[in-house]
Amino acid sequence: MYRINENYLKLPGSYLFSTIGKKVSAFSAANPDKRIIRLGIGDVTQPLPGAVVEALHRAVDEMADADTFHGYAPDLGYEFLRKAIAENDFQARGCAVEPDEIFVSDGAKSDSANIQEIFAADSKIAVCDPVYPVYVDSNVMAGRTGSYDKESEVWSDVIYMPCTAENGFVPELPEKTPDLIYLCFPNNPTGCTVTKDQLQVWVDYANRVGAVIIFDAAYEAYISQEDVPHSIYECEGARGCAIELRSFSKNAGFTGLRLAYTVVPKDMVCGGVSLHSLWARRHGTKYNGAPYIVQRAGEAVYSEEGKAQIRSMVDRYMKNARYILEGLKSAGYEVYGGVNSPYVWMKTPGQMGSWEFFDYLLERANVVGTPGAGFGPSGEGYFRLTAFGSYENTVEAVERIKEI
Amino acid sequence: MYRINENYLKLPGSYLFSTIGKKVSAFSAANPDKRIIRLGIGDVTQPLPGAVVEALHRAVDEMADADTFHGYAPDLGYEFLRKAIAENDFQARGCAVEPDEIFVSDGAKSDSANIQEIFAADSKIAVCDPVYPVYVDSNVMAGRTGSYDKESEVWSDVIYMPCTAENGFVPELPEKTPDLIYLCFPNNPTGCTVTKDQLQVWVDYANRVGAVIIFDAAYEAYISQEDVPHSIYECEGARGCAIELRSFSKNAGFTGLRLAYTVVPKDMVCGGVSLHSLWARRHGTKYNGAPYIVQRAGEAVYSEEGKAQIRSMVDRYMKNARYILEGLKSAGYEVYGGVNSPYVWMKTPGQMGSWEFFDYLLERANVVGTPGAGFGPSGEGYFRLTAFGSYENTVEAVERIKEI
Repeated sequence: MYRINENYLKLPGSYLFSTIGKKVSAFSAANPDKRIIRLGIGDVTQPLPGAVVEALHRAVDEMADADTFHGYAPDLGYEFLRKAIAENDFQARGCAVEPDEIFVSDGAKSDSANIQEIFAADSKIAVCDPVYPVYVDSNVMAGRTGSYDKESEVWSDVIYMPCTAENGFVPELPEKTPDLIYLCFPNNPTGCTVTKDQLQVWVDYANRVGAVIIFDAAYEAYISQEDVPHSIYECEGARGCAIELRSFSKNAGFTGLRLAYTVVPKDMVCGGVSLHSLWARRHGTKYNGAPYIVQRAGEAVYSEEGKAQIRSMVDRYMKNARYILEGLKSAGYEVYGGVNSPYVWMKTPGQMGSWEFFDYLLERANVVGTPGAGFGPSGEGYFRLTAFGSYENTVEAVERIKEI
Repeated sequence: MYRINENYLKLPGSYLFSTIGKKVSAFSAANPDKRIIRLGIGDVTQPLPGAVVEALHRAVDEMADADTFHGYAPDLGYEFLRKAIAENDFQARGCAVEPDEIFVSDGAKSDSANIQEIFAADSKIAVCDPVYPVYVDSNVMAGRTGSYDKESEVWSDVIYMPCTAENGFVPELPEKTPDLIYLCFPNNPTGCTVTKDQLQVWVDYANRVGAVIIFDAAYEAYISQEDVPHSIYECEGARGCAIELRSFSKNAGFTGLRLAYTVVPKDMVCGGVSLHSLWARRHGTKYNGAPYIVQRAGEAVYSEEGKAQIRSMVDRYMKNARYILEGLKSAGYEVYGGVNSPYVWMKTPGQMGSWEFFDYLLERANVVGTPGAGFGPSGEGYFRLTAFGSYENTVEAVERIKEI
């Protein structure tokens, strides 16, 4: 008789956003007259930029003609897109990343979940706490995280690196030595980030102890301050120890279009085996490339027109972030993030628990946010609001929160 | 110091089609004057059907307007697509499959590679021999296949089920009991298939021994004979033991657009745990849905217009298949398949090895096919030709093969 992968059974409850969805549906059903404003999930709301829309239409027309039709894409992505990425996202910032070190994919969620596969089954992982749930959950499924303590919500074999107001939401180097270190800056959920000097400390540490940093830079487009690194490859030595994940979701509004990429530098070698070749093999065996039309859409993001349009999209969201940040601050709340990130991270008032505050806010202000506890034990007592709503809704949500 | 997943190192050489690509490039560089005809890889060449193109343009326009913009898709696929699939591919054939048992994805390659994840690490797999390489390779990466013998090209822990001319390319029930059985009918690479009665034997067997059948029906649209099942759910008891994989690649030309789905019936329960819930959890954690515009394209495949257009596409390819089959037969070759499938499987002439014949055909006829040995030990001595070229190229390739 066949058996299942029992690691799945260790996963506590359902994915964070499913739980929130259910709670909101239940409230909505019970209160059909209330207009709920959602500042919870990190989904964008502005339409695709004009340059992207045009590129999509053009590519669809190519697919309608046998002479310009495109079948299977090259395993690692089309050269035109990888070249645009290498030039604009890296070489223009002085980072030595070549087109053939870029692996185009359908999403940073997939990449961040799949990347663990190329490492040993008993690899020790370190994560920031709070953290995007996928990093830990994908390692739970692979059996790397030990046992789960329901009380403390902690996995026995995961190294947690608390990020709280006390350390400015920048983790300290861990005491135990990890094999894989997941870092996300600008951070989801805290909205905070690191300076280049702070990130250099991590790169040096990884090189010293022989760890790999999986650097999630999905929110790179929101960086507004000078000394914040856009890529980990701005740090010296990063090509030897860091894999970087990027996404088109948050800069160009591709959450429903699906496009991302991962950089695996050819310098990363373990016992004579290049990680680049392992990830290439995984792509070649388990993936068939992002759609041609979507890769053309990605290319358009790097056109002059596209760049201006995504800049203005990001600016609109950041106007929301500033409104939330300043509005809540003026109302006496303790708030963080929102400067280099579309996320505002607030301390729940009066020692309220995260989920308690979620219910309170939903009931009293009809505003949906994300309980910090859903991102890990150190998220307890915090709450995430996102800047992805419309300006009008954001303003109204802040006013409602101020009133209660 | 971190370590890698050493299972990857066990994989012999590179993916079949990469090797072919390299050989063809080398030949082409050395012989720039020769016009090569490719009947090798299973990629389509006809453009997207009109109904699909229209649906794509409409959906792109929706994405260009904030009021109709679509962000993150529902984890398991849009209801409109899952409903169209359930009605057309299953309920219309008397198969009891509900929309919420359908998981929309970006490809049958991904699904067939990922499905093993929800089963125990020591599951014993059985595959047809020859077979689509991804079934075995994904299990190699997961450490399930034991050691590889270079001489015989056999994995010690895989149960091989030979499919040769002797058994009409229909495998016999295995002697050792497997946990997971990969079946693909109509078959890639042999182009042969099973009757409903023959498939019922497998369903009964799986239910008797407690195995799961992973049924790959990617070539379902090519079925032309009455007694060939379009879905495994036409067989009694299949809902308790079978997962079915389907693709939009070969029926509607989506190889470059990427859309597929997997059916996991809710009846499949192991030790009180439903496989449906495990696969849903995997989707929710590691995947973010197929693009909205592509799901709308998939929906258009089921419109009256779309159905007629894909029927005529398939007919065009099948005209090629008939031409190859009859042409080679009349020239004295031993050929199989090509009736319910776009693949023709030929015996190499004069005891030639598969790769030897590949080189011979490339050099003498400038025609590219796929060596049977690339699909497994029992593929040695066979060769695959595909019907996905243009009619003109197909005719010329057959004439060239006849001449040598």
